[in-house]
Amino acid sequence: MKVLVIGIGLIGGSFARDLRRVSAGAEILGRDRDKSHLDSALELGLIDREATDADLESADVVLVTIPVNSLAAELPSILDRVGEETLVFDSGSTKSLICKAVSDHPKRRNFLACHPIAGTEFTGPQAAISGLFEGKTNIICEVEQTAFGIQERALDLFRKLGMRIRYMNPVAHDQHIAYVSHLSHISSFMLGKTVIEKEKNERDIFDLAGSGFESTVRLAKSSPAMWTPIFEQNRENVLETLDEYIANLQGFRDLMRQGNFEGVFDEMQQTNRIKEILRGIPTPKT
Amino acid sequence: MKVLVIGIGLIGGSFARDLRRVSAGAEILGRDRDKSHLDSALELGLIDREATDADLESADVVLVTIPVNSLAAELPSILDRVGEETLVFDSGSTKSLICKAVSDHPKRRNFLACHPIAGTEFTGPQAAISGLFEGKTNIICEVEQTAFGIQERALDLFRKLGMRIRYMNPVAHDQHIAYVSHLSHISSFMLGKTVIEKEKNERDIFDLAGSGFESTVRLAKSSPAMWTPIFEQNRENVLETLDEYIANLQGFRDLMRQGNFEGVFDEMQQTNRIKEILRGIPTPKT
Repeated sequence: MKVLVIGIGLIGGSFARDLRRVSAGAEILGRDRDKSHLDSALELGLIDREATDADLESADVVLVTIPVNSLAAELPSILDRVGEETLVFDSGSTKSLICKAVSDHPKRRNFLACHPIAGTEFTGPQAAISGLFEGKTNIICEVEQTAFGIQERALDLFRKLGMRIRYMNPVAHDQHIAYVSHLSHISSFMLGKTVIEKEKNERDIFDLAGSGFESTVRLAKSSPAMWTPIFEQNRENVLETLDEYIANLQGFRDLMRQGNFEGVFDEMQQTNRIKEILRGIPTPKT
Repeated sequence: MKVLVIGIGLIGGSFARDLRRVSAGAEILGRDRDKSHLDSALELGLIDREATDADLESADVVLVTIPVNSLAAELPSILDRVGEETLVFDSGSTKSLICKAVSDHPKRRNFLACHPIAGTEFTGPQAAISGLFEGKTNIICEVEQTAFGIQERALDLFRKLGMRIRYMNPVAHDQHIAYVSHLSHISSFMLGKTVIEKEKNERDIFDLAGSGFESTVRLAKSSPAMWTPIFEQNRENVLETLDEYIANLQGFRDLMRQGNFEGVFDEMQQTNRIKEILRGIPTPKT
């Protein structure tokens, strides 16, 4: 099996690590705009060599895991070059525009639109983790647009990686994911900003901050190059979540201003049931 | 050594666990308004028996770890009853009002105002963890108000638990902690609220949410009974942080609305240095 990973960062690298484990003898090739990522991936043994254009045509599987703006721009020309039976899948955090970018492509049947809910706040091949996908959800969009045989091969691969599959349409994906992922990143970035602005003396942050702060601000370490195009592509949905989040914060502030601490208590108590909701989410790898 | 823990929850229970380890033969007594906490603490072997009023006078060490409203109300009468050489310390997340509540107390010298930056989002004696305080910061306020010999015994104890000490005045403590702890809790609670409101079908949250969401919303599992009085006592500082946080979120939203994604990128990149700042914070125990 010849596998090509376009974008050999955290996701691509982790995929390569697991593939070596579950598919002995697979030839894993990589491509990355960032030469240092490619070099690291080679050094770490994630890939066997750099991929050439010719490899695209003969690849059995192509994972395209690059920022969503590049994905929308480059996916059509990647599909142009792959073979008739090549499985191409992505891992983009937005799905509507990605699906739209290839909707009329003659090789649309080769593409499976995926969003594995897996990752950390780190980037690059050095951040690749074994078992990253184990027990995680892989959201597949517009599955009916992919050739049946190619779907089957993809599902077999995802099963070997230990992933749970969930099918959604791209519009619903982008709406829901704005709430449970994109908004979290903004809340975390702006929390980090607020604290950094105030605490010019960083030593104070370091000494007083505990694991609670670390947890809420963890996503503020994420890559702006990856996240800016996500927010751009999912702008309308993200703006909606942000409006609601700001309104809720204003509501909480107003209760505090009014000295209505029964109201403050109620707000928190009603949200406490997040405990039950979260019980099933796999905890972060460390 | 006779040690009395008033409020035998996560903090009190974890303290008892470690005390058994570092101070063999210590008699550990507990008291709690919640009978079920007391029963659990006995069952778990955290305490040897329930404390009586008479035990207060003969105790060497009294840890008072109850919600900060009860702390401000009850600390004076606890001090009334302790012996001349008893060390009394607290673990409250606010310090100004606590210090004020005992500032004129004849036994002020017996009290050491503490805030160990340790804990999890869970509560109760079942949530007690061994080694919770290892490597964590303990903020001590108004150290000069505590008798020297009593200070020394406290520091010896904290050293045995592996804590780092930092001295601050209560006003500065309350200001800084509003940024690096109290605000995080509100941002997390309101994030949880926003998502729960939208995602009436909880199954969707569960399937799409990843470790990033889990991390940012973790603190929304915290106890409203513990946090409401913290927000009440630190109201002015918390309101200030909340205003700044809301303004930063509005700024981010405006950039997105204007389609200024260079600006969005810059906002995130400037906050990325939180990576370096956080490097020294101990990661949460799981």
